[in-house]
Amino acid sequence: MNGTAADLQDTRLVALDWGTSSLRAYRLGEGGRVLELRHRPWGIMHLPPAPAGADASPGAAFERALQDTCGDWLAADPALPLLACGMVGSAQGWREARYLHAPTSLDALAQGLTRVERHGGQPLHIVPGLLQPGDLPNVMRGEETQVLGVMALRPAEDAGPWLVGLPGSHSKWVVARSGGIEGFHTFMTGEVFAALRGHTILGRTMAPAGAQDGAAPNDAAFVRGLRVAGGSDADLGLLSHIFSTRTLGLTGVLPASAQADYLSGLLIGHEVAALARVHPPGSAAAPVQPLLCGEPDLCRRYALALRLQGFAEPAIAAQATPTGLWQIARAAGLPAGGAPQPSSAESLAA
Amino acid sequence: MNGTAADLQDTRLVALDWGTSSLRAYRLGEGGRVLELRHRPWGIMHLPPAPAGADASPGAAFERALQDTCGDWLAADPALPLLACGMVGSAQGWREARYLHAPTSLDALAQGLTRVERHGGQPLHIVPGLLQPGDLPNVMRGEETQVLGVMALRPAEDAGPWLVGLPGSHSKWVVARSGGIEGFHTFMTGEVFAALRGHTILGRTMAPAGAQDGAAPNDAAFVRGLRVAGGSDADLGLLSHIFSTRTLGLTGVLPASAQADYLSGLLIGHEVAALARVHPPGSAAAPVQPLLCGEPDLCRRYALALRLQGFAEPAIAAQATPTGLWQIARAAGLPAGGAPQPSSAESLAA
Repeated sequence: MNGTAADLQDTRLVALDWGTSSLRAYRLGEGGRVLELRHRPWGIMHLPPAPAGADASPGAAFERALQDTCGDWLAADPALPLLACGMVGSAQGWREARYLHAPTSLDALAQGLTRVERHGGQPLHIVPGLLQPGDLPNVMRGEETQVLGVMALRPAEDAGPWLVGLPGSHSKWVVARSGGIEGFHTFMTGEVFAALRGHTILGRTMAPAGAQDGAAPNDAAFVRGLRVAGGSDADLGLLSHIFSTRTLGLTGVLPASAQADYLSGLLIGHEVAALARVHPPGSAAAPVQPLLCGEPDLCRRYALALRLQGFAEPAIAAQATPTGLWQIARAAGLPAGGAPQPSSAESLAA
Repeated sequence: MNGTAADLQDTRLVALDWGTSSLRAYRLGEGGRVLELRHRPWGIMHLPPAPAGADASPGAAFERALQDTCGDWLAADPALPLLACGMVGSAQGWREARYLHAPTSLDALAQGLTRVERHGGQPLHIVPGLLQPGDLPNVMRGEETQVLGVMALRPAEDAGPWLVGLPGSHSKWVVARSGGIEGFHTFMTGEVFAALRGHTILGRTMAPAGAQDGAAPNDAAFVRGLRVAGGSDADLGLLSHIFSTRTLGLTGVLPASAQADYLSGLLIGHEVAALARVHPPGSAAAPVQPLLCGEPDLCRRYALALRLQGFAEPAIAAQATPTGLWQIARAAGLPAGGAPQPSSAESLAA
């Protein structure tokens, strides 16, 4: 999908999914159609180093990452608008973007963009994060955009509400209604798995196999873990259950190659069991059909967990971030050819 | 307590608490009285290196650790019996000692010792580990001895049963009755805490303060964590709760110096909440008074957690391993001056 000169004329928006470990740049055309995608390792914690004598400031490093990724797009049309979401708006990012409080709407997100001036170019706009206050506050940066994309991709006849799951390092489960986000939960499932596997005794007896290593996933071991998390020994809780990864190995029940998938089943099982407690399947609070958006094999495994907990078969949504960025850009009047619409006074002052 | 020649004559048993990271050698006199204690870093994973030209086998390394720690005791009386418990009996130890199945008794443990012959010296006897079979098997090595010591140290009028807690990296909770162990649970609380703190995003915002660093413990933050684990948001579960360590920091509620104690409260709170589910306080299955044995400040914190979950005020037991080793040695007829009693044929053959 490398753009020709003619094709570059069709660009309406440069949309950036800019996280901790990587940067995805989408060249979007009319209607948010993805004309080109580029993937670079320039996450906010891994920016390109400054050449000798160059400006070594953080801002310059972000600009270098941007130019390396899509400098040719910006040169071809210097008036192209830019919109980014994700950790680029965190305190460690290019500019700290505000948090909006949940519940919130597409329009509120579009009105709350933070504007970063760039030398000799269009400003970069950054989508706000979401903060859900309370005794156990919750935050997200980037997932709000993904959820708006998931909703926009639903068939017209599906008016929600939805329970949108974004599995990963920090899984998010978002209750969403047409055009808005009601509330959300965070589960540190993926990061806890990596810490347990890499830095506790549980990892020492694991063979490098299973879904986490790109090998064929061992669904039997995974489902065994799911059943423990939601079964008759559920009362013992996670801190006790995980020890069985080791003892089932010691007693010859679980071979080394199955232990990672079993542990993954325990953790995902605990996450989805908690979800079922706070959003009981079939209740008025829980929509009939959960939606999943993420890496395909991970979504497949979460679907197994959801089914075991009594949820309806989840729909698996495509990578939704560029769609979400387009939705927000359009609501903000950003896309080239659209009617520009200023952001709020506060964001212009940022 | 360095032994004089006269004092060395009073020795009845060399009792070894030999774990993964350290070796404690007790010189025990009549009635199991501790005449001398030596603490060395020679855990089974950190044995003294072989001098140039010396025997580099694992067995020789264990013997060197033993000689470095208490060679003078053994030289003063070559007939002294030796009894060890802990990971020295694991597959990575001096010799793999069998697992007995729980429930078990003091006598069964004493009959099940594994005997390791030593060149020119008395054999080393190793206490069996315990294995509790089931869908979620449990194992222990060393804690069985500690629990027997805790029971022996109870006042004569207290006939149990007891719920004995041994908090630590892998916390054990043991249901014990006079002279026997009925069953037990393992919670990986301490090791999970270390992995979360050292290897997830939660540790990045923590200041090195709190009980885990030898600073004054922040009990308010700790109790806040306990209350979340057992409170109205308990349904969200551990994988969700732990994320609040970060978000309460982001929102200015929890200073960096309080976050480690808060996370500790969440984890210990989840452990003790699970304990209360499987051994409801005040029920027939749960004894009136739990017992705690371990590091004093950790026991103090577990006592806070137990109280919040409705358990009776726990008694805190002294370091009980040498007492437990004495009990087992006496039941096996090991102590010098006692009537020797052969171990089972199987253990003599080992």
